[in-house]
Formats: sequence, structure tokens, C-alpha cells
Amino acid sequence: MGVRTRREYIESLKNQKPIVYMNGKKVEDVVENEFFKVGINSIAITYDTANDPNYKSLSTLRSPLINEDISIWTNIQVNREQALTKTKLMRVLGETLCPCHYRCLTSDCINTAWAVTYEIDNKHNTEYHKRVIEIVKNVQRFDLVIGGAIVDPKGDRRFSPAEQEDPDMYLHIVDRDDEGVIVRGAKSHSTAAPYTNMLCVFPSRPMKKNERDYAIAFFTPVDADGIKFICKSPPIPEVREEERDMENPISSRFGHVETTIIFDDVFIPWDYIFLCGEYEFTGRILQIFNSFHTWHKCGCRCANMELNIGSLALTTYYSGIENAPHIKEYITNMIIDAEITYACALAAAIEGNKHESGVYIPNRMYGNVGKIFSAEKLGEERFFLQEASGGIVITMPSERDYKNPETGKFLKKYVKGRVGTLADERVRVIKLVEDLIASKWAGWYWGMCISGGGTIQTLKERVFADFNIEKVKNRARKAVKL
Amino acid sequence: MGVRTRREYIESLKNQKPIVYMNGKKVEDVVENEFFKVGINSIAITYDTANDPNYKSLSTLRSPLINEDISIWTNIQVNREQALTKTKLMRVLGETLCPCHYRCLTSDCINTAWAVTYEIDNKHNTEYHKRVIEIVKNVQRFDLVIGGAIVDPKGDRRFSPAEQEDPDMYLHIVDRDDEGVIVRGAKSHSTAAPYTNMLCVFPSRPMKKNERDYAIAFFTPVDADGIKFICKSPPIPEVREEERDMENPISSRFGHVETTIIFDDVFIPWDYIFLCGEYEFTGRILQIFNSFHTWHKCGCRCANMELNIGSLALTTYYSGIENAPHIKEYITNMIIDAEITYACALAAAIEGNKHESGVYIPNRMYGNVGKIFSAEKLGEERFFLQEASGGIVITMPSERDYKNPETGKFLKKYVKGRVGTLADERVRVIKLVEDLIASKWAGWYWGMCISGGGTIQTLKERVFADFNIEKVKNRARKAVKL
Amino acid sequence: MGVRTRREYIESLKNQKPIVYMNGKKVEDVVENEFFKVGINSIAITYDTANDPNYKSLSTLRSPLINEDISIWTNIQVNREQALTKTKLMRVLGETLCPCHYRCLTSDCINTAWAVTYEIDNKHNTEYHKRVIEIVKNVQRFDLVIGGAIVDPKGDRRFSPAEQEDPDMYLHIVDRDDEGVIVRGAKSHSTAAPYTNMLCVFPSRPMKKNERDYAIAFFTPVDADGIKFICKSPPIPEVREEERDMENPISSRFGHVETTIIFDDVFIPWDYIFLCGEYEFTGRILQIFNSFHTWHKCGCRCANMELNIGSLALTTYYSGIENAPHIKEYITNMIIDAEITYACALAAAIEGNKHESGVYIPNRMYGNVGKIFSAEKLGEERFFLQEASGGIVITMPSERDYKNPETGKFLKKYVKGRVGTLADERVRVIKLVEDLIASKWAGWYWGMCISGGGTIQTLKERVFADFNIEKVKNRARKAVKL
Amino acid sequence: MGVRTRREYIESLKNQKPIVYMNGKKVEDVVENEFFKVGINSIAITYDTANDPNYKSLSTLRSPLINEDISIWTNIQVNREQALTKTKLMRVLGETLCPCHYRCLTSDCINTAWAVTYEIDNKHNTEYHKRVIEIVKNVQRFDLVIGGAIVDPKGDRRFSPAEQEDPDMYLHIVDRDDEGVIVRGAKSHSTAAPYTNMLCVFPSRPMKKNERDYAIAFFTPVDADGIKFICKSPPIPEVREEERDMENPISSRFGHVETTIIFDDVFIPWDYIFLCGEYEFTGRILQIFNSFHTWHKCGCRCANMELNIGSLALTTYYSGIENAPHIKEYITNMIIDAEITYACALAAAIEGNKHESGVYIPNRMYGNVGKIFSAEKLGEERFFLQEASGGIVITMPSERDYKNPETGKFLKKYVKGRVGTLADERVRVIKLVEDLIASKWAGWYWGMCISGGGTIQTLKERVFADFNIEKVKNRARKAVKL
Repeated sequence: MGVRTRREYIESLKNQKPIVYMNGKKVEDVVENEFFKVGINSIAITYDTANDPNYKSLSTLRSPLINEDISIWTNIQVNREQALTKTKLMRVLGETLCPCHYRCLTSDCINTAWAVTYEIDNKHNTEYHKRVIEIVKNVQRFDLVIGGAIVDPKGDRRFSPAEQEDPDMYLHIVDRDDEGVIVRGAKSHSTAAPYTNMLCVFPSRPMKKNERDYAIAFFTPVDADGIKFICKSPPIPEVREEERDMENPISSRFGHVETTIIFDDVFIPWDYIFLCGEYEFTGRILQIFNSFHTWHKCGCRCANMELNIGSLALTTYYSGIENAPHIKEYITNMIIDAEITYACALAAAIEGNKHESGVYIPNRMYGNVGKIFSAEKLGEERFFLQEASGGIVITMPSERDYKNPETGKFLKKYVKGRVGTLADERVRVIKLVEDLIASKWAGWYWGMCISGGGTIQTLKERVFADFNIEKVKNRARKAVKL
Repeated sequence: MGVRTRREYIESLKNQKPIVYMNGKKVEDVVENEFFKVGINSIAITYDTANDPNYKSLSTLRSPLINEDISIWTNIQVNREQALTKTKLMRVLGETLCPCHYRCLTSDCINTAWAVTYEIDNKHNTEYHKRVIEIVKNVQRFDLVIGGAIVDPKGDRRFSPAEQEDPDMYLHIVDRDDEGVIVRGAKSHSTAAPYTNMLCVFPSRPMKKNERDYAIAFFTPVDADGIKFICKSPPIPEVREEERDMENPISSRFGHVETTIIFDDVFIPWDYIFLCGEYEFTGRILQIFNSFHTWHKCGCRCANMELNIGSLALTTYYSGIENAPHIKEYITNMIIDAEITYACALAAAIEGNKHESGVYIPNRMYGNVGKIFSAEKLGEERFFLQEASGGIVITMPSERDYKNPETGKFLKKYVKGRVGTLADERVRVIKLVEDLIASKWAGWYWGMCISGGGTIQTLKERVFADFNIEKVKNRARKAVKL
Repeated sequence: MGVRTRREYIESLKNQKPIVYMNGKKVEDVVENEFFKVGINSIAITYDTANDPNYKSLSTLRSPLINEDISIWTNIQVNREQALTKTKLMRVLGETLCPCHYRCLTSDCINTAWAVTYEIDNKHNTEYHKRVIEIVKNVQRFDLVIGGAIVDPKGDRRFSPAEQEDPDMYLHIVDRDDEGVIVRGAKSHSTAAPYTNMLCVFPSRPMKKNERDYAIAFFTPVDADGIKFICKSPPIPEVREEERDMENPISSRFGHVETTIIFDDVFIPWDYIFLCGEYEFTGRILQIFNSFHTWHKCGCRCANMELNIGSLALTTYYSGIENAPHIKEYITNMIIDAEITYACALAAAIEGNKHESGVYIPNRMYGNVGKIFSAEKLGEERFFLQEASGGIVITMPSERDYKNPETGKFLKKYVKGRVGTLADERVRVIKLVEDLIASKWAGWYWGMCISGGGTIQTLKERVFADFNIEKVKNRARKAVKL
Repeated sequence: MGVRTRREYIESLKNQKPIVYMNGKKVEDVVENEFFKVGINSIAITYDTANDPNYKSLSTLRSPLINEDISIWTNIQVNREQALTKTKLMRVLGETLCPCHYRCLTSDCINTAWAVTYEIDNKHNTEYHKRVIEIVKNVQRFDLVIGGAIVDPKGDRRFSPAEQEDPDMYLHIVDRDDEGVIVRGAKSHSTAAPYTNMLCVFPSRPMKKNERDYAIAFFTPVDADGIKFICKSPPIPEVREEERDMENPISSRFGHVETTIIFDDVFIPWDYIFLCGEYEFTGRILQIFNSFHTWHKCGCRCANMELNIGSLALTTYYSGIENAPHIKEYITNMIIDAEITYACALAAAIEGNKHESGVYIPNRMYGNVGKIFSAEKLGEERFFLQEASGGIVITMPSERDYKNPETGKFLKKYVKGRVGTLADERVRVIKLVEDLIASKWAGWYWGMCISGGGTIQTLKERVFADFNIEKVKNRARKAVKL
């Protein structure tokens, strides 16, 4: 059970009873609801691949903690080689076509909790770390998927948590006793949360001394009393499956529900809490989490860029211009971007640090610059895809017109491109490009790449803070004998 | 009647009987069909504004041809001042929020036909020009809207029209007699065509001597026998109007149907033909059309950029970060882009040339560089909007959740931003940004900006061809005494 | 005499006795000093062209003020047509190869002084304007060249003028009587000043109420008592003229001396003063000056870009790769950049405003965005030139090796490129490219383009301030019914 | 002697008698000639650091080949850890301020020769490899520096070597016997060659079957009969050392002589030849060389970027604006660029391959994308430096004016910036920035970064060729079920 199957993952969801809303209505069963299919499928990919001989060696390993084979996504990463293996896996997973399987969060959260609790205990003689060990054992044993519930609504950004008009704008403790604490607040932008097995909750900004009640981090079942998921429907096609075969090849299979999670006075037992009041470690959580998360992002962005490159190459093949110099230039630029992004992932893995708790933490500088770089390049990638593929990306009639004999005969005749190929093939590729750059999915993915895991401005501030500016100023001073 | 009202325009559509298909079905009545509403509304904007005292002075003028007040969109432009007035109008029309009202095509087509027929008649002693005069009078008198049917499917792009496997890949004459000609072929990417009053058809590439039958340009009613419109549905919201007030503020009002027009052996009477066999002028049509069209594009792109700037400023106002330095930097960069785009429109107007036929043709260099520049900047604009607005653009639950009391109470509490403002206001602005950058509409507009009116690569080739490279080489030679 | 010749200009310099230092020594005679030759020659270009039949019609016009033909550079510009003529002239002057003839400053200063004094007199019942009229008459009659002495040293930029540790960090009045005022301070970055006929001095930032003594603007002869010019030698070739024919074709002819001007208690008579204490107009001076200056910059930057394009085309012609797709792409991008820059100049001219004083002031938005755009593109231009021309730009041995028979025979053999051309020709073009991008001159020009006339950051702040952000926010509000 | 000292290196040069020309004259003694000082000093840096306890552990290692401690620059690299160590070293060497110490070529050449001869021998039963082993032993034992003589003049680039009008345009064999071969031709862009100990010569493009005589690779002493070096003087300051202390802090110490090497019928004994006629391996030499060289380039570019960052931070510190948001933005962008470049170096090291000959070859994809990326960013870096430092970079009078009491008193007063700092300090930093971006040195470094080691276009073609485009096309095909 250290390595679940897709079926087992879905079974686990059926045993949960989260309170979920979407499109103005309550969702009784996330597994059966059509809007949750692409999200569940995206996560299930990680269960498929862990059981697939092609990926098994990269996807699974032996856990010394529970002495079982486990998924790499539930592993406490202990050395550079494990980090390199995972870097490779993330790129290879591009073969599944899934742009975001979301298991990275599981990995981000348990490794972060593992490392930071070791630090807190060291300073405060607390006992968080052994609780986290137990949680991690559980996560490994049952191959759980964890949802991140991190970003507070923030209210008026000019003010700190304690200064907000509404004290609930950042999640905080409203009561506590021997059993645990009661928390109130909300978490925005929680991708996939309702179809995970457990949430990991921590503050989205470092807290100060007077914000102790906001300094709270914990795990929780998704169906704990008082938790409510208000969901945004995923960017899936409007057209029903039975009427569609060519359209939306990506967005009909992959994507995610985005959630605002309400913590309406939720009780959290002490065993699930891994920081409570030690405000000075809230920044550390973010640092360690950031080290893992943007590293992961570089891997999957690279894989998605490769799909874009392949799509551009294919669409121009069908129109007959794939050897035009400007097409080669586009492809070359996209290769450069993909390989730079991957280089950043590799550098994060290779330049990581062994934490005193045993975790090997990737170097956050490289994950951050890779995420910034790849987010800034996204518009250019899409420009290339649109420019190379042409207007037909947004003007090609629907599959239903193509299959309607009355109109289809004309479309088959006139959409045909390269001699020796079929209109049918070309239409499929056009519909792929449309899905990648001109669909609702494309809009969602755009936002996820730029704002997900921290806005670019936030990451830039981290890059600036993490760089040793005095060292290079001294070098300039040395040059001028100062 | 030289200046129609919205109602008169719509009436005119009701009197037409085009053969129209969409989503696998025949469309019986474009005026009544829900998928045509945003397109018809977009065009109707030009009729509204021509009758609106605020825009009348920019939108209408006296036609010497019919001695009536007419719309600026049916005018044969004769001087720089008219061009400057229209440049200003295009920017001001941004106030209507409509990103593409499509009337520019009417202007592009009649001015092009006017000028090129003058040239052809001069060389070949033909009588095209006087036919065009009659057509233009009609267009002015009834304030018609013309649809462009220009882009041939092109088949395998490695081959010229005459070399294609299927001779119909470029529209061509298959028969002719004293009354007119029969044409066969198709035209792709015809925005708005089914709800215009008349099509203007000409080849999308210069034809050669052996391609005389492909050298054919004409006007035609949209409901001529043998014309079939296979339409792509516009990027309108999925959610019904009555369930929606905040979402999709742009795409629920504006957008267009894209059409593949089939010419299934269509008869064109001589009176409607303005080039037939004079292959050496097919390049000229494209040049003159290009001169008008990319100039117009600069105007409306600038207006849309302004909406983006306003949206970014507003969304950051509501989150409280509008004075953050990086937000000011984003806004400043977007202003620079908008003003450069507008500068190109102005330069095209000011540096135009008076054609011997009387038409004042804008300078195509500036329209082309402006279109290239603004297309290349589109990704950056959207990056700024996403980065500044944050993840909520793609994670904010739906309006229905917001209005469902059970979930709405939480959303009203937690989406609230700036002190003193309402959650309601912020939600509206978030939904605007989503519509602008993360919706199906956003995908369509992206494609239109980059590929519409000629791909960037095509325009770059024109820029290269239009620049006097020998002049500047001589300057370098002079510098080195060669 | 309203239009001087080169000889007359140089004569005028001989009649001046400025105190000038360079390279640690006093310069007795700027006309004879070898370091001043390129600067004087650069300015003299404007006298040559005004007397050259090829440029006369663009370069000269009738002054209603003195009823004589004058140079366009001493003109008080009164309408859009004059502005368009000058825009064209600036581009055409590229034919002279001179990257900076510096007469724009003359025009900037007199038009600014003309307009702002009209405003001051209106408010304060002062009599500055009539003094400026007399000065302008003089400038026109004797076709003077004016040097700008504008940028104060600024000291510690965190502090305002009045807060500086040293009160002289901004030029200010230290004494005054019926005859005039005594000023003390310095002006940095004064290009060309010692070989102009007159300085125009004003504050480089808006002054506040408590900075009245810093609010002082005036003209002065360059050899007034107490003025000292500490000069930086221009970026001219090290190699003596007689040893050089092929190398440094631009920098051996054109360039400028940069000067720090010391005002060591200089007396300025009232007749030369055009603002004294009216601090609230110091910002206006900068605005109007900015409107003229960045407009001019767009014109000459465009001309210089054209020289770069020609040089790239020529260097690749000689190596045989001028038709390679990437070379065409480089050239096309450079054309786009040059034409956009020129479009900004045209837009500034066309969208100017007629000031109540009669001056037609170009629209500063377009000059500013054009200067920003062209400065940001400079690196790319040079990248293209280096990439296309190859390593030989920085590895080609010197002309002396080329002319030394012992080594020359090998170089002639091995530097030869395109069949049918001579090594000699190719060497000249290589040396041109080296001069343009890899010489001391190139470094100077780089700085002038980016920092001259206001740093990019300063201009960006002006762009932000000049744009009506509320108008576009309202448009977004309208979209969402707020 | 496996690790020489600076003195020993210079001694070795004194024992060589190469034929050298510069500036039209013969150079009798490169060690004594003032123009060679910066170049020799740059190379000597690698001897200094190998003997410096601070760098020794990164710079030296045990050679199994000669069983002595050797310099890392003469090492045959055998595993990933060695590659990672060297990657770190290259960045750390930035502390020496030397932008190019040139020893990378030694490493590039011996590792390439080692690997390729193994392949050739395998196929052709030749005995090149054992000759290379002997040469490498020598290089290690005497810690030699090798100069690359690679780039053929190429003549008219439209033609291949065999098609050139002049058969000598690519270096080739003109005679051969039992002792060796006679070669004729020239090599351009040979940085540093006259002050190396040995040249490594091979073709700069893959040769074809009919170009067997052009397929020749060998080592040779720099003073072999018939070799002539025609040198370009390095970008050193014009002003003599004794008059200069503040100016040109980099270019007065570091830089290189660039050389055109003439092979005027030079005899090469068989023992020095490592490819002769096996044309199909000429491409392999370039591939392996490229793998090492661009990897090295990423390391030193990163180090130089750090100097730029430090200089920008320091110059803005002295003017008081170091905390302005736009300055932080510039610095952050430069950090991102430096770290991405370094990430590419790390990725090349980590993703290398163990060649069958034992050499561990870095992954050329990452070296290539890193070099392309960093070359394309160079203009932006300099833009930031100029923009942040201001006009004073190009207008600050000379050190001699600063030290002349008459003018110095004013300069000391008016150049002073931040309260509490000295004008003297600020002047030094300004002069550093000038040296980095606006000097002759800056022009040379610009060319070296962009064109050195292969132009960007060449590298882009390699990137395209090295990427598995079919793999990603298949992924797109899989997405659309093709």
C-alpha cells in the first residue's frame, strides 16, 4: 500500500465526506461529479506512473522510515542523487501530457514540516518533530496526496495581519485547550484540495511577535468539521464528451479545480499541529517550502514547454512550412527556454543542502530564477505557437461541423495541408494548439504559471534577499582599491 | 440613410438569407441566434457611435460622391486630415469597450478597390473603376458593412496556387461568359462575414502569369447562390445571461463569429468584379489593403491596451498595492507600449500618400511596424495583468457561488480588499481581468492580434521589402569612402 | 548672417576666451587644440547643411522676428508644419554621418525660455519675456549655438537641494543687486559647452518654496568671469591621422567634449536672467525643455540606427552571408526599431500644442516613449551588429599592419571575403563596425543615448505622470458597471 | 613543475622566439613589450591561483597519468565531481577580477584531442591516441598553456572550403612525407596565442570527403618555422601608468592580444598530428570542443556578471540611490541572469557523459544555451549599469584633472556624493563602471562574449540539431491520438 493504484486513490476519496460547493450548488460526491474528473485524473497520473514499469525506477524507492517501497512523492528526500532522480522524473512525466499532477505539494509539505520542526524543537524544546514523523509515516504507508492550504486572503495589502480591519483575513487561532486549537480564516488558491487526502496549512507570510495567533501550522483531514470548499469549476470543454473526439485533447483530460477553503472554526488536535506561536519560524517554513516548490515547477514547466515545441513542429509540418527559417528560429528559442528551465531544476538539485534534520533541501535560488524565467517566457512561447500555426487556431470550425457530412466535405477538402497527409490529422493538431493557447484551459494554465507558488514579484524579492550583494560589492571595491 | 442606426443595420440582416452553419447545425436566422449576438452588437457599435453626439463629429462627414452625410467607415479617404481624424476616432472608440467593431474592413476594401482599379484601367483600358464608384456610392448611401473574404486555405504551403494538388486551394474562376464568371474555392478566417451586407473577395497572395484564373477580385452579396458560411462559435460565456451579471463583462457583449466561406461555384456578374486576370495587380491590392488595415489595427490595439492599463490599475487599487513600485513599473511599461502603438497609427496617417485616384493611402511601413510591435507586446501586457492581479484571477469562485447565501457570506468576507471598498466591487474587477486574459475570449483575441491581418512573419517580410536598404548601405559606404 | 557658415562659426569661437581645462592642463585655444576638433566639426555640420542646396529648404526659413532668413535651429517654432519639417530634417541629417550635431540644444533652450517667460510674466507681472525676445533676436541674427548647462551635481541624492550638506550642490544665488545676481555651483554633463557661443542655465529639478535661491535661469557668455570648463577628452582615435585612413571612420570625425562647468561666483546681469525666484515655474522649464529635447533625440537616434542597418548589411555583403535568414531577421528588427523611433518623432510633432506665447510645443509623451524605446533597443542593435559581423570586429589587426608590406600581403589574402570584392573594402567596413560598437566612441555614444537628456527612469516617471490613468480606470469601471 | 608559478610561466615565454607583429612593427620580445603585459598577466592569474592556498584545493589535483600534482587546467577530466569542482572554480575565479584568463582553451584542446583520437583509432586503426597521451603528459608535467588556432578566414561564406577561389582560405596540407606534413593557411581570432606555449590547430567546420586535405589537426610550438602572428593591440588605457591610478582599473590589468596566425608552409611532424584525412571526425572535434568551451564560458560570464552587479550596487551607494526600487529591480534582474548562467554551467557538468576514452564530457546543450543566454543579456546588463550610474560614466573628467589642484578642488567638491563618503571613492567607482561599459576594453569584451567560441547563430543551429525534436513531436501526436 506504500504505492497506491489509481483505483485505490479514488476509493480513498469516496471514503471522505468534505463539504464542497461549486457553481452555486453543493457537490454531493466529488468522485462522481463531472467537474472533478480532470482533476482527479491529473493526480491519478502519479499513481499510474508509480505502477508503470516504464517509470517505476524513477517513481518509487525504499523508505527507511517504514521499510516499505513508497512513492517518490511521499519520500523524505535525503541526498543529491534522490533530488537528481526526481528532477529527471519531472521532465519525463511530460510524456503523460499532464501539465500539473499536483503531487509535488505532498512532497513540499512533508519535507518542509520535517525540517522546520527539527529547528523549532531545537530552539524551543517542543515536540513537533516526532508528530511530523508519525504523519509522514502515515502519508508514506497510505501513499496519500496532500493539498496545500497556504495563501491567506490578505484583505487590504497595505496592512499586516494584525492591522487588518477584519482579524480573520489571515487564518488564526481563536481558541485553544488541552486537546488542540480552534482556527478561523480562509485559504485562497488551493488547487485540487477537495480531492486530496489531507491538507497542510501554514501562514503565507512571516509573522511577527504580535501576530503569534497567526503563527499556526498543521495538517488536517479534508473533511474535518467546519472546513468548506468553495470551488471554481475547472477549465474543461463545454462540449460533451460524446460529441467530441478531436477538440480539447488536453483540457478534456487534465486540469484542476481551484478552491477557496473556509475554516469556519475548525478544531485541530495537537497531534496535527507542527507550529503554534513560534512566529519566528513562519519565515523558515516559507523558505523551505519555496525551495522545494519552485524546483518542482521548473521540472513540469520544462515538460510542458516540450509539448509546446512538439505541437509547433507538428502544426507547421501539416501546413508545409516546418523548414521555414523563422519556424526553426521559433523552435530553437523554445528549446533554449526549455533547457534553461531544466538547467535551473538541475542546479537546484545539485546545489542543495543537507539539513540537520536529514532532509536534502534543493537550492531555492535556482528554483526561483527558473520559475521567474519560465513565467516571463510564457507569452513568447504562445506567441510563437500562434504565429506559426496561424489564424486557423481560432477560426477552425468545430468538430461537429467537421463531422456533419453537409459541411464536413468542404472542410475535409479545404483544411487539408501537406500533400500526403489527411485533413483529419491536421484538424487534430490545430485543435491541440487551440487548447494549449486559446482555450479557457490556456487562461488557467497561464495564471498558474505566473501566480502559482508565489507571484513573480515575491520571488524576485526572495532572489534579491538570498544573493550575497556584499560579496560582489567587495569585489568591485577590490577592483578600485577601496 | 447615409448614416444608419443600429436598428437599420439589424433590419438589413433580416432581409438577407445566407446559408450558415455552426456547431454541426444549420443556422436559420443569424439575427435571432444567440451565438451571433455579440458579433452583431460589435458591428452595431459603429452605427451607435455615428448617431451619438459625442462621436458624431469624428464619425461622420459629407461625401462629395453622393452629397450626403456618411459614416467615416464608408468614406473614400482623400487627405491627411481625414486620416488623422480617423486615427483619433479609433482610439476614442476604446470608450465603447468593444475590442473589434470590424467596420475597418469596409473602409479597407472600398478604398483599396477604388485605388487599384484606377491603376488597372490606366494600364489595360478596362472599366473597373467606374463599377467600383457605383459600388461605393451604394455602400455610402446604405451605410453598408463589408466582410473581407481574403485568405485562401493555401493547402500545402510549399507550393504555389497553380502547383497545389487540389486546384481549388486558392479561389479561382472555373467558367465565364458575357454575364460574369463562376468561381470555386474557399476563404478562411473571415471574421463576421455572415452578419455583413456584402463580401469583398480577392486573392491572399500575388498571382503570377500562369495563375490568371486565380487573379479575381469582386464584391458579392452574402446570400449569393453557392456561398456557404461554416462558422466557429464566438468566445462567449457558457453561463446563461440570467445567471450572470459580474462574469465575462467583455466577452458577453463583444466578440465575433469566425467563418470559413465556401464558394461552391458561385456566379459573379461583371458589375461586381474589379479585377479579372490582371495578375500583376494582385500584389497591389494586398499592398493597399495592408496600408489601410494595419493602420486601423494600431488604433484599436492602442484602445484595448488602455482598457488593460485601466484594469490593472483598478485591480491593484482594490487589493491595496496600486502604489507599489513594481505596479507603477508595469503600468508605465504598458503606457509606453500603448503610446508607441498609437504613434505608429499617427505616423501612418501623417506620412501617407495621395494616390492618383484621389485616395489618401496611409503609410504602410508604420501600420506594419505598429502591428508587429503591439502583437509582440501582447504577452507582456498579459503577464503584467496576471502578475499584478494575482492568482485570484483564475481561482475566484463563480458569481453563482458569490450569490448563493450559503457560500456568499464567506466570499463577501474574504474577497474584500481595500478598506472602504466592497467585496462586490473587487469581484467585478477580478472577473474583468479574468475575461481579458484567462477566458476563451482572451484566446480568441490573442489569435486575432497576432495572426489577424497577416501573420507577423508576413508583415516582417513586407517591412524588409519596403525599406530602402541600398540608401543606408550607401551611407555606410560613404562613411568608409567606398 | 542669419545663416552662418562653418568658417564664421569657428571665427566666433576664436573671439571667445573661455577658461578651459582638459587632461590636467589648461587649454589655451579650443579651436587649435586637437581634442576639440571632432566636437567643433560636429556642430559645424549644421552650418554646412544650412548652406548646402540639398538641405537648405529643410534647414532654413524666414524669421518674422528679425525679418531675415535664419537657421531652423534658431527658430521659434510656431506650427505643426515647422515641426514636421524639422522631424524630417533630423532623419535626413543622418546622411552627414554625424551622430550628434548638438544644435538641438539651441532650439530647445530658446523655445523653452520663450514659452515659460510668457507664463511667468502672466502670473507675476515680470518682464522676462521681452528680455528673451531680445536674446532670441540675437541668437537668430548671429546664428549662435547655445550650450546647455543644466544638470546639477546633486550630491547625495537622498536629499533635496536645500538639505544637501554642501549648499552649492545645486547652483544658486549667493548675492544680488540692481545689476544682477552672483551664482555659485556647477553643472555636470555639459556636452560641447566650451565651443558654443552662449550657455543656457537652469535647474535640473523642480524647486520648492524654500529653494527660491536655487530657482534661477539665465543665459551667459561662455567666457563670463568665474566660469571654468573642466573637460573630458572626446572619444577620438589614439592613432594619429597620418597613420590612419581606414580606422575609426566615425570617431575621427565626430564626437564631443563633455564638460563639468564650474560657476565660481559668476555675475549674471538682469538682462540675461529669465527666471529668478519663481520656483513654481522650474518644473515647467523642465517640461517644455523635455518636450523639445526628447523629440529631437528620436530623430537623430533613428538616423544613427539607419547607419547601423547599413553597416550590418554591408559587412554581411562582404562576408557573403547577407542573404542568410538570420541576417534578414536582424535587419528587419532594426528597421522596425528605427521606424518606431521615427514614428514617435512624427507623433510628437503632429500631436504638439500651440502655446499661448505662440510656440508650437511638441507632445512630450511621444518624445519620451521614443527615447525610452530607442535607448532600451541599443543593446540589441549592437548585438545584431556584433553577431552578424563576427569576431573580426575585435580581432582584425590594425591598419598599420595591413599597410606594412610584410604583414599586409597575408592580411590582403586572408581578409578577403566575397568573390569579386577587395580585402581593402572589407577591412574598411570592419573598421566601421568596430568604431560603431567596440570603440571608446561606442562607449560614449552608449552613455549619451541612455543617460543623455534624462535617465530612462526619470523619463518613465514623466510618462507615468503625463498619462491620464483615471480616464482608463474609468473605462475599466464602466466595463464592470462601477 | 606540474604546477608552475607565474614566474616560471613567464620564463617559458622568454625561451620562445615566435615571429610577432603588431601595429605595423615587429615585436622583438613579447614579455617586455608593453602591449603584451595585460595578456600575460591574465594567463598568469591561473598560475597564481594554483599556488594560492585559497584556491589550491579547487585548482590542483593528482594526475594518474604522470603521478604528480597538476593544474586543473591540464587535467583530463574523468568524472562528474571533477566537472563540478571546476564549475565552482570558474565562478570563484571572479574574485581575481580577471574576465578571461584563457586557460580554458588548454583544457578544451587536450580533452578534445584525447577523446576524438580514441574514436578515430577505433575506426581506422590509427595511432593518434598514444601520441596525444604523450603530448598531454608533457602539458601536465610542464603546466603548459595552449593557444587555440581554430577559426579559418572562410573567405566567401557562400562557398565550402574546396569551392573557395583561394584554396588557402581554410588551412590545408600542401605537402607530406614520412616526417610529417606541410600546412598552409591562416587562423583568425586566436586570442592570446603568442604568449602561450603551444598551439592546437584544427578545422573550424566539418570537412567533407573531397576536403580531405583540409581535415588536419595538430599541436605545434608557437615558434615553429613559418608561423607568423599578426596581432591586434589589446584594449589597454592610453594614459601611461604613472599618470593613472583611478582610471581603467580592469583594462589596465586584464585583457588580451588578438591574433591572426599565418601558417606560411609550416612543417608539422607526425608526432604532433592527431587527425589527418579522417574528415568524418572533423565534426566530432568541434562537438567535443564545443562541449567544453561553452561550459567554461558560462562559468566566467557568471563571474563577470557578478562584478557588474557589485559595480552597480557600489555606484548607486555613492550617489545615494541604492535603495531606489528601480535599482533593486536592476540588481535583481542581473542576479537572475548570473544565476541562470551559472545554472547552465552546473547542468553541463552534471549532465555530462563518460566517453569511452575515459574523458567526462560536459553536456553541450547546457553550455550552448548558457552562452546564448548570457550573450543576449549583455546589452541589458550594460543598460542597467549605465542607467543606474548616470551620465557621469561618460562625462567625468580625467584623473589628471582630478589631481590637478587648480581643477581638483572643484571636482572634489562637486563629485562628492553620499554624505560620509569621499569624492575620491566615488570617482574610483565611476571610473570602474566606465571601464566596464564605455571603454575600448568594453568593446572588446562585448565582441568576445557574443562572437567568441562560436557566434550565437552557430550555437543556435547546434542547439536545434542536438534536441530530439521527434520525441516531442511524438508527444504532440500522442496528445491527438496520431
